Amino acid sequence: MRYELYYWAEIQGRGEFVRLALEEAGADYIDVARGRGGEAAMMKLLGGAGAHPPFAPPVLKAGPLVIAQTANILMYLGRRHRLAPAGEAGILWANQLQLTIADFLVEIHDTHHPIASGLYYEDQRAEARRRSALFLKQRAPKFLKYFERAIERNGGRFLAGAKLTYPDLSLFQTVVGLRYAFPRAMKTLEKNLPRLRDLHDSVAARPRVKAYLASKRRIPFNRYGIFRHYPELDS
Amino acid sequence: MRYELYYWAEIQGRGEFVRLALEEAGADYIDVARGRGGEAAMMKLLGGAGAHPPFAPPVLKAGPLVIAQTANILMYLGRRHRLAPAGEAGILWANQLQLTIADFLVEIHDTHHPIASGLYYEDQRAEARRRSALFLKQRAPKFLKYFERAIERNGGRFLAGAKLTYPDLSLFQTVVGLRYAFPRAMKTLEKNLPRLRDLHDSVAARPRVKAYLASKRRIPFNRYGIFRHYPELDS
Repeated sequence: MRYELYYWAEIQGRGEFVRLALEEAGADYIDVARGRGGEAAMMKLLGGAGAHPPFAPPVLKAGPLVIAQTANILMYLGRRHRLAPAGEAGILWANQLQLTIADFLVEIHDTHHPIASGLYYEDQRAEARRRSALFLKQRAPKFLKYFERAIERNGGRFLAGAKLTYPDLSLFQTVVGLRYAFPRAMKTLEKNLPRLRDLHDSVAARPRVKAYLASKRRIPFNRYGIFRHYPELDS
Repeated sequence: MRYELYYWAEIQGRGEFVRLALEEAGADYIDVARGRGGEAAMMKLLGGAGAHPPFAPPVLKAGPLVIAQTANILMYLGRRHRLAPAGEAGILWANQLQLTIADFLVEIHDTHHPIASGLYYEDQRAEARRRSALFLKQRAPKFLKYFERAIERNGGRFLAGAKLTYPDLSLFQTVVGLRYAFPRAMKTLEKNLPRLRDLHDSVAARPRVKAYLASKRRIPFNRYGIFRHYPELDS
């Protein structure tokens, strides 16, 4: 089965968490919106999709299934491609981790858009400075230390079980994104996060992930996605 | 099995979405933090919980399972208490809806806390006014119309399948909360949301929900939870 991924063509965004799972799984997929006529196909899907309309991208078509919400798509892919723990407790734990990553992502995004996602950054710059300072002081350390502790509790290498699962890929992407957006702050924060650094390095070195990151399929970071580098927001 | 729910004792908050599912299911549960020594027990659980530490409440202990993240807890309860659709497509759809409700809740909360959850409302009042105005103009209608459309696509009464499922309970709570927080704006918005109004009424009339809402177990709305009524933020 060839999956169809529908996500904005110009950004990594939330779609990137799905792309990483598809790539690590070696799954057959098309990134629909990046092809000819793809954005139109995506807009059509968002307005349609029968009985299960998506609120927003990413959306994954898997045969007859139309699945939206990043954590939901990853739960589905994780089970199918051995990127999730087996057993109920493990499945719930992986989903719990992914939802905590999702909460973190909202807070990361809102550092540059604290007032409204529909306004330009330039129209909420003062508020963004205020939010970012508190985010870097309070929230980022809280989330990052939590994930460091979760890896530690799980034996020191992965978040869930004895091998890589989809939340590991998502946490990798979160670290990469934070390093791009807040290089100065992350340099300080990461000093006390050895397991998170190791997890980043081990994911980056996986052959399929490595090949993907070096390919044209990997969209560079820019000022349209979740992770944006505005030097004035860094510590 | 008696469930143990761990959530802040003084607010509805995210715990309320779990409480409503437990109540509608007629499940045996203890709201731990509301009992003697309960807050201390909750703080102990948050710092511990073995291999699967929660990032934040709510947390549900179900026998040996320790489950956090509201949507994750509800997926678990939904399956066990026939409050979820049967079959993979239905399970994914219910989870997708719940995650979209979760996204909406973050935006609702951030109307009064756009800069930081760790600051008082009074310290971000100007930003809250700005964010609330845009929320009521753009985001609230977008989310509410989406759910109206989802009910319509599903036959007009429920969000998923032919009977009540856990996202219906959560959508009910969201409507109740929005009416409390933004009474003027909701009066206008709801004019064009007949299915959402009907869903609210049918959930409120269910015997177990009705008994719960009239009981002391239902904590009144206040200025500590997700839904807060500040007249200056209403339309």
